[in-house]
Amino acid sequence: MAKFTDRLYERVEPIWASYMEHPFIKGLEDGSLDEEKFKHWLKQDYIYLIEYARLFAIGAAKATDLNMMSTYASLMDGTLNTEMNLHRDYAQKFGISETELEQTEPAEVTTAYTSYMLNMAQIGGVENVIAAILTCTWSYNYIGLNLAEKEGAKEHAGYREWIEMYASDDFTQFKKDCVDLMNAVTEGRSEQDLQRLEDIVVKTSYYEYKFWDMAENLETWDVPVK
Amino acid sequence: MAKFTDRLYERVEPIWASYMEHPFIKGLEDGSLDEEKFKHWLKQDYIYLIEYARLFAIGAAKATDLNMMSTYASLMDGTLNTEMNLHRDYAQKFGISETELEQTEPAEVTTAYTSYMLNMAQIGGVENVIAAILTCTWSYNYIGLNLAEKEGAKEHAGYREWIEMYASDDFTQFKKDCVDLMNAVTEGRSEQDLQRLEDIVVKTSYYEYKFWDMAENLETWDVPVK
Amino acid sequence: MAKFTDRLYERVEPIWASYMEHPFIKGLEDGSLDEEKFKHWLKQDYIYLIEYARLFAIGAAKATDLNMMSTYASLMDGTLNTEMNLHRDYAQKFGISETELEQTEPAEVTTAYTSYMLNMAQIGGVENVIAAILTCTWSYNYIGLNLAEKEGAKEHAGYREWIEMYASDDFTQFKKDCVDLMNAVTEGRSEQDLQRLEDIVVKTSYYEYKFWDMAENLETWDVPVK
Amino acid sequence: MAKFTDRLYERVEPIWASYMEHPFIKGLEDGSLDEEKFKHWLKQDYIYLIEYARLFAIGAAKATDLNMMSTYASLMDGTLNTEMNLHRDYAQKFGISETELEQTEPAEVTTAYTSYMLNMAQIGGVENVIAAILTCTWSYNYIGLNLAEKEGAKEHAGYREWIEMYASDDFTQFKKDCVDLMNAVTEGRSEQDLQRLEDIVVKTSYYEYKFWDMAENLETWDVPVK
Repeated sequence: MAKFTDRLYERVEPIWASYMEHPFIKGLEDGSLDEEKFKHWLKQDYIYLIEYARLFAIGAAKATDLNMMSTYASLMDGTLNTEMNLHRDYAQKFGISETELEQTEPAEVTTAYTSYMLNMAQIGGVENVIAAILTCTWSYNYIGLNLAEKEGAKEHAGYREWIEMYASDDFTQFKKDCVDLMNAVTEGRSEQDLQRLEDIVVKTSYYEYKFWDMAENLETWDVPVK
Repeated sequence: MAKFTDRLYERVEPIWASYMEHPFIKGLEDGSLDEEKFKHWLKQDYIYLIEYARLFAIGAAKATDLNMMSTYASLMDGTLNTEMNLHRDYAQKFGISETELEQTEPAEVTTAYTSYMLNMAQIGGVENVIAAILTCTWSYNYIGLNLAEKEGAKEHAGYREWIEMYASDDFTQFKKDCVDLMNAVTEGRSEQDLQRLEDIVVKTSYYEYKFWDMAENLETWDVPVK
Repeated sequence: MAKFTDRLYERVEPIWASYMEHPFIKGLEDGSLDEEKFKHWLKQDYIYLIEYARLFAIGAAKATDLNMMSTYASLMDGTLNTEMNLHRDYAQKFGISETELEQTEPAEVTTAYTSYMLNMAQIGGVENVIAAILTCTWSYNYIGLNLAEKEGAKEHAGYREWIEMYASDDFTQFKKDCVDLMNAVTEGRSEQDLQRLEDIVVKTSYYEYKFWDMAENLETWDVPVK
Repeated sequence: MAKFTDRLYERVEPIWASYMEHPFIKGLEDGSLDEEKFKHWLKQDYIYLIEYARLFAIGAAKATDLNMMSTYASLMDGTLNTEMNLHRDYAQKFGISETELEQTEPAEVTTAYTSYMLNMAQIGGVENVIAAILTCTWSYNYIGLNLAEKEGAKEHAGYREWIEMYASDDFTQFKKDCVDLMNAVTEGRSEQDLQRLEDIVVKTSYYEYKFWDMAENLETWDVPVK
């Protein structure tokens, strides 16, 4: 039987393909990316990951059995410890202290994207939680695996490490766990429910594009008076 | 004793003043606003109001006494019935059917703004709910009362009705009820809590500006692939 | 096609039938019920209804479309205004002031029952909300309609009014709205989901029995030290 | 300055002292406790701990900073892994398989107590979460430390292990972490808020007594028809 995530991939892969053409990803690929842009991404992604970890907490809170609760708990642990530690280490290499990371004010896109995911996760059942989580993990692995295959990529040591991290077996397994959870919670769901969940995956895919834009253009909040 | 809402007003009034200079509000003022832009606003605001009514429902759910629950219930009723009916009537005058209203896809800004409010309302206590609600009602009344005083405003019959609605005694009372509720739930709160709530009022004030921008520029979602 | 609520009725009707044999209901039937017991019920039910109204608010907050949101909003209004006013009027006839009603401390069973419903409503999707709501409304209508048909019932003017209220066309319609909502949100649901929802209806049916017990025995909290 | 938890302790210590006189605790103390009663406790507590872990997940979801989120995440991990593993090991010693543990149906008291905590945790802010958590951990440590000092206690190897576990330095530290968190989130709170939180600690203290009763009397659900 076709998996729900196959249908999702078919729907959003064209959107993800557009990330590969984005100047920020192109810059990671050939090592030409301005480090200021990368540092902007690093700081915003640090803030993002705190809210992303919160999503796993919501998933654990809404889990319908002990097994699902443990899965969410270990995904949360993976985010808070593995992925965020990596960010702190990275940040140091790029001259950003932990204090600076923590004092980062969320940019407009970061606020919008995390608010969207957290609202969807809270307003609905456990299926909404994993739908909100899926795109980020899956599309980063998609980008990592794509870039890892490119000739001439990985010139820049820092960016190479980034690519290798998101293309790693560990991260690929993390992605698979999320994909499996999405399929598990949607078994026997009505078409109406599936469409609602697909919409969450589409919208988060839009937000991923905007997040690359935000980093590329060093965006914070675009308002005339603050 | 100074009210918390006096402090809030001092903080955000400069942001609200910038709305009065926004081309969309200027166009409402002198009647020159392109009707396509107004219709775009009408449709997006209809979607917005559904989520705004949801905020009142969350407030009723989290209310700490029967009186507060009844207040939220009647604010919800006011939004679902009075304000949304006004929108349906308006829409008809501008040639937009109820079906068209309901099938409107939320624009990027509408999604971001409503997600932000709903996340804040759900993740925290009842004080977060009214903080999320406050800016929209208060700033629309602020705009309405400002425009109502301008010479030469209200040339356009449809826009005049809009101005009169948001400057009306009923809407002013609705605003006052929200302001009173904000003060009531923040009595005896720590400075840390008040800063957190102030931040919600600042961010929703940013989003109001972006909402006028969205209407002015007929924005939906700004992504290369959908 | 068989409705989900037909399956639910078949499962819980034997539990509801046991209410008809409960001394409290027997006392309502033949007018012999000690008024102290009825007053205990009245006060606890007043507290219960506040939390019941909160369930409708949660339903409105989680509603997946505008129509469902409006349904929950009007059910909430019906509870807060119609049913709670009836309680205030009743209470007055039995010499209980509004202040006394409001200062009632929830009994152990009232706390357990309302906590159970509110937890189920919050932890799951919108289907959990209506499943939590269903038993109280439906079983009161079941009891009212049953008692209304008994010869010799309704000797006691106050109890007759009670029976007529829950057997009324208005209350029967209220019950039907809840039943319809339950069927609407479970269309196309998996057997696993349906079992989970059935369990909520069974547990709330147990709690209804305990609520009659609490009134009959004038229970508050059964602990040795308070 | 007096800590909020000092005030709480003064309020609930008389209730906790009554646990020490409860036949179940007396039976643990002198080793005379019927193993069937202990096994009933073990199975119900296993179910309880799943919901208790869920509370930590809700705490992480509502945490107002990264530090608090990490604290909740590690408390959750401690419950899911340390404390629940201990239960699985124990259960095996008493001839209860993991499957039997997992298939345990929650008793009436277990349902009421966990529903109460989960409702309070969800309906309010992060302060409600730790207030709901506090009594169980703190009172088990209180009981453990009390029993550990008694002459003649610990005759029964299995019960000795139980006592030593809840009197251990690790568990005492776990208790302290919860106490510290309670004080941290209530700094600068109004008396009204503190009373609301105190009520949660009182009610969970009542429920702890009922939980010992349930184990002592091998209770499930006390209804005439199931």
